[in-house]
Amino acid sequence: MKRKKKKINAAILIIGNEILSGRTKDKNIAFISNWLNLKCGISVLEVRIIPDVEKVIVKTIRSLSKNFNYVFTTGGIGPTHDDITAQSIAKAFKVKYGFHKQAYRILEKYYGKEKFNDGRKKMAKMPITARLILNPSSAAPGFITKNVLSLPGVPSILNSMIENCKKYLNKGLKVHSKTINLFTVESNISYQLEKIQKKFKKNVDIGSYPFFRLGKIGVSIVSRSTSKKKLELVNEELKKIIKLKKIQILNI
Amino acid sequence: MKRKKKKINAAILIIGNEILSGRTKDKNIAFISNWLNLKCGISVLEVRIIPDVEKVIVKTIRSLSKNFNYVFTTGGIGPTHDDITAQSIAKAFKVKYGFHKQAYRILEKYYGKEKFNDGRKKMAKMPITARLILNPSSAAPGFITKNVLSLPGVPSILNSMIENCKKYLNKGLKVHSKTINLFTVESNISYQLEKIQKKFKKNVDIGSYPFFRLGKIGVSIVSRSTSKKKLELVNEELKKIIKLKKIQILNI
Repeated sequence: MKRKKKKINAAILIIGNEILSGRTKDKNIAFISNWLNLKCGISVLEVRIIPDVEKVIVKTIRSLSKNFNYVFTTGGIGPTHDDITAQSIAKAFKVKYGFHKQAYRILEKYYGKEKFNDGRKKMAKMPITARLILNPSSAAPGFITKNVLSLPGVPSILNSMIENCKKYLNKGLKVHSKTINLFTVESNISYQLEKIQKKFKKNVDIGSYPFFRLGKIGVSIVSRSTSKKKLELVNEELKKIIKLKKIQILNI
Repeated sequence: MKRKKKKINAAILIIGNEILSGRTKDKNIAFISNWLNLKCGISVLEVRIIPDVEKVIVKTIRSLSKNFNYVFTTGGIGPTHDDITAQSIAKAFKVKYGFHKQAYRILEKYYGKEKFNDGRKKMAKMPITARLILNPSSAAPGFITKNVLSLPGVPSILNSMIENCKKYLNKGLKVHSKTINLFTVESNISYQLEKIQKKFKKNVDIGSYPFFRLGKIGVSIVSRSTSKKKLELVNEELKKIIKLKKIQILNI
């Protein structure tokens, strides 16, 4: 008997002073969230960005791990002194931090014994009972501790590893979405949108997002639901309003 | 007598399903954080991204407002049904939500009485005791409630309003930063970096960030401190290592 899929959620925890200070623009949030939604049917319900401070990491990991099905961390698993994610997660879950045998072997093989210096060895240190998330681009593995999956912060490396997270995740119900882009202003349709949202409040989330394009003001209406059928019904109601109000459609 | 400046911090709260789902890439975090740091000497210590859900907004506002000197919210103050930031903040602080007289006058004047429809009127609804953050580009004002400053989510509009936040903020000590970009790998310098960081642990934060440029691997060493003098001392030590290890400098 096939088990019925449920809604499964996740949080993303970005660890790094460089993102908080605005020096580096984050590229991982949208990537992970899209991947989770499209490939795994998992919805991200919260994101946090915090500094490289052990006390803050420990506290945040405990809180998110308790409140969400999965937590994805990015950053802080490299070879330098400011990379403290692995030790902080070990502390959060009270598991031993040290050389992970399999990770050590992978890295030793990748660099060769002579070039496997202390900095590189640090990347084999993590909660010793963690399971590894293999890294096809630069060897240093990520890892999963309880329901927390830890990935590096460099987007190209993270992107290369994401498929290796799949085997640790239970899939949930996929959220489908439909977007209609209109040349109008939000206040022209806000009353009607609210009525449709109320009618479908149990099954569909309707969002309205203004944009500027081709020198004109527009609105994207985004509907999201686990039910394709309900989404279609919402779309029909939206088309009625568009026709009634004679609004120009940019694309559907 | 001039009052001595202290460290002042802030949190940023991004409210919006479209950012969480990965549909829209956030552009406001780096902008606000850079502006706060450079113009106001205020450091952002936490960022959260949460959905358009009243219960979640209320709880998060209360928590961040208590733990940080200032909280900047973005998103959810437009005319549509999914814009619930203003009412949620009123609820969080138990202040009355309704038409804000000054905001109503501004919007009525901007649109003209005839075009000032219900959707647009909604943008004048907020905690009635809030002070306004004027909006030079599209009139609908932001507002400050206790220590929480609420801005719109559209980056171009937010950017046009940010200077109008200044009068509500106490300035803190400016954090200076120096960056050295090197063509090397992190593990080549991680031991020395850690030693320097330990020596200056009270005054300087040293971060190390790998990059790929011109087909080569590099590392950005970013030092941050409220003391320019300490920053200079750290830089001298870094230069010594670079010379000793014969590392190629991309730029300082």
